[in-house]
Amino acid sequence: MANHTLEGNRLEAIPRQPVSHRALIGAVEGTLADFLAAQIAALDAVDPALGGFTRTARDLVMAGGKRIRPTFAYWGWRGVVGTTEPVEAVLPALAALELMHTFALVHDDVMDRSATRRGRPTAHRLFAAQHGDQFGDSAAVLVGDLCLVWADQLLARTAAPPAVLVEVRARYDRMRIEAIAGQYLDVLGETDPASWSVERALLVARHKTASYTVQWPLAFGLALACAGRTDLDEAYQVYGLAVGEAFQLRDDLLGVYGDPAVTGKPAGDDLRTGKPTTLLMMARRMATEAQLDELAVAGVARQAEIIAATGAPARVEEMIRERVREGVAAITDSPVRADARTALVELAAAASHRPA
Amino acid sequence: MANHTLEGNRLEAIPRQPVSHRALIGAVEGTLADFLAAQIAALDAVDPALGGFTRTARDLVMAGGKRIRPTFAYWGWRGVVGTTEPVEAVLPALAALELMHTFALVHDDVMDRSATRRGRPTAHRLFAAQHGDQFGDSAAVLVGDLCLVWADQLLARTAAPPAVLVEVRARYDRMRIEAIAGQYLDVLGETDPASWSVERALLVARHKTASYTVQWPLAFGLALACAGRTDLDEAYQVYGLAVGEAFQLRDDLLGVYGDPAVTGKPAGDDLRTGKPTTLLMMARRMATEAQLDELAVAGVARQAEIIAATGAPARVEEMIRERVREGVAAITDSPVRADARTALVELAAAASHRPA
Repeated sequence: MANHTLEGNRLEAIPRQPVSHRALIGAVEGTLADFLAAQIAALDAVDPALGGFTRTARDLVMAGGKRIRPTFAYWGWRGVVGTTEPVEAVLPALAALELMHTFALVHDDVMDRSATRRGRPTAHRLFAAQHGDQFGDSAAVLVGDLCLVWADQLLARTAAPPAVLVEVRARYDRMRIEAIAGQYLDVLGETDPASWSVERALLVARHKTASYTVQWPLAFGLALACAGRTDLDEAYQVYGLAVGEAFQLRDDLLGVYGDPAVTGKPAGDDLRTGKPTTLLMMARRMATEAQLDELAVAGVARQAEIIAATGAPARVEEMIRERVREGVAAITDSPVRADARTALVELAAAASHRPA
Repeated sequence: MANHTLEGNRLEAIPRQPVSHRALIGAVEGTLADFLAAQIAALDAVDPALGGFTRTARDLVMAGGKRIRPTFAYWGWRGVVGTTEPVEAVLPALAALELMHTFALVHDDVMDRSATRRGRPTAHRLFAAQHGDQFGDSAAVLVGDLCLVWADQLLARTAAPPAVLVEVRARYDRMRIEAIAGQYLDVLGETDPASWSVERALLVARHKTASYTVQWPLAFGLALACAGRTDLDEAYQVYGLAVGEAFQLRDDLLGVYGDPAVTGKPAGDDLRTGKPTTLLMMARRMATEAQLDELAVAGVARQAEIIAATGAPARVEEMIRERVREGVAAITDSPVRADARTALVELAAAASHRPA
């Protein structure tokens, strides 16, 4: 990315590669929009009710979000592949991760009974407004299922040799399994937060977020570049888990202290549902007995004050810094291409210091 | 299948191909059991709670059922491939259909609030017994998600050339999309049964059952045999939709008049949830005004009597016969291998005249 002007010009003539983060997101979203338009047309022709169903699914996919998984996958790929290689061939794979992410969000929101996501009503709430709560939950589960299958269909359009796609799919499957396992531990933790621990919360963060948001998207991108290239695998893995955990720890802080206008979620949502986050588990560990007693009975706003008073947020900030340092060191010492190294160092900072 | 004794002996020495329906089911279930044991071990090592979660998923997969999709896929494949070709190569693909089916059943049971399946508690009830209803629903959604991903992992183990697997996956994806679309129409119908019709009920039957249970499994098996072999595609499609609709129409009758001890589901389950089946829509169309009025207010047992009095069950039996005839004719006139032709004719009868 040494010469933005030159590459920007080249992009307009032949859309060879995204030269900015915004251009990458635009290319991913364009791929999604084209794919979804075709799916909607096909199902609309079967029955107009199916058209409505799939349009809601599309709106959820296109409603924004950070597109962080395609971004990490892109740089995982670009870490090996030079800038002369066009991105078009791998765009379906990058975009597939975003469809898979919509599946995860929609199902998570049903499980967490969340009312808003990205500042809009969640899927089950949209459908509940049509035909009541039971229909809302059912249709949301089905929208998630549909997005997961769409992801496979889009992934199949990746222009890559069969051996490469086999390895890409193997990593994609592990990513999905770990995300589901992490989500199970997450809902299990909420049934009995009293028995949870900092260590257990970090295990959930590692599975539900780190592996799913950073580690596997990077590994997926690497596989897209070249099956069997193992010299970067370890660096990506260390970076992915460290930066992914930092991302989740930032999420914990935002879940309590974030600005709802920026996060798109209600304030104190994690405290309301009793989610045993690392932040909350750390606060419990660091609290005095009087603080522990008050924490058990206080309202959401007061809980946030008590947690701050325990010193847990400062400790979590320190954990974030440690992890970002570890991730950056791993990628700096690795044989990754220079522009990808720069981008991944920037992404480590952005993922761990963000307002939403 | 001319000489069962000889082939049975051969099977014990070299498990070359299942020679009976029971042997086929055994081979599919053995494939599932081996695959699931490895998945459980891997997740158990991460956290014992994940071991428990995945063991519940395994028990649901292994709890029985007719294994009808692997059976149709097997005969779709065997319709082209001679008996000297070992089945081992395609067993992962056949078994994957059963994992996908567990996904569909578990999610459907959450949506329908069904308490029992195959005579046992449904997934969400099993989990609800551990940590309450909300956890039960969440864990069941996740078990379904897990089974869907497992199906992809198992499908990837099929020993077939890449071009064949691409076509197999394309058909598998269409099968999944149609099953999800059919289920959406099904839950939508339950929100407003009064506006439903015989035609709409048949559309649901076509998508949710016919395409998903017979048409696509057959097409999937054909693709496993040989990508690009199109001369059987049409016969399989006609047979699949006709026999699949017959299968669903039999399900409608069993849902009202079946023996709970045999079906494993409570009597009158469809009437309880108000599912607008073809049977119920036909009864409404054929009912006198007095019958219609009573149908709207009667209990489940009385509803079953009124439906019988309208003549709808006899009409549905006739529709089943018409469809079985159509399916059998298509397969009889096709260039399918002789043993597969015999098996598919038998399966058409079995699928449409069964106690459960």
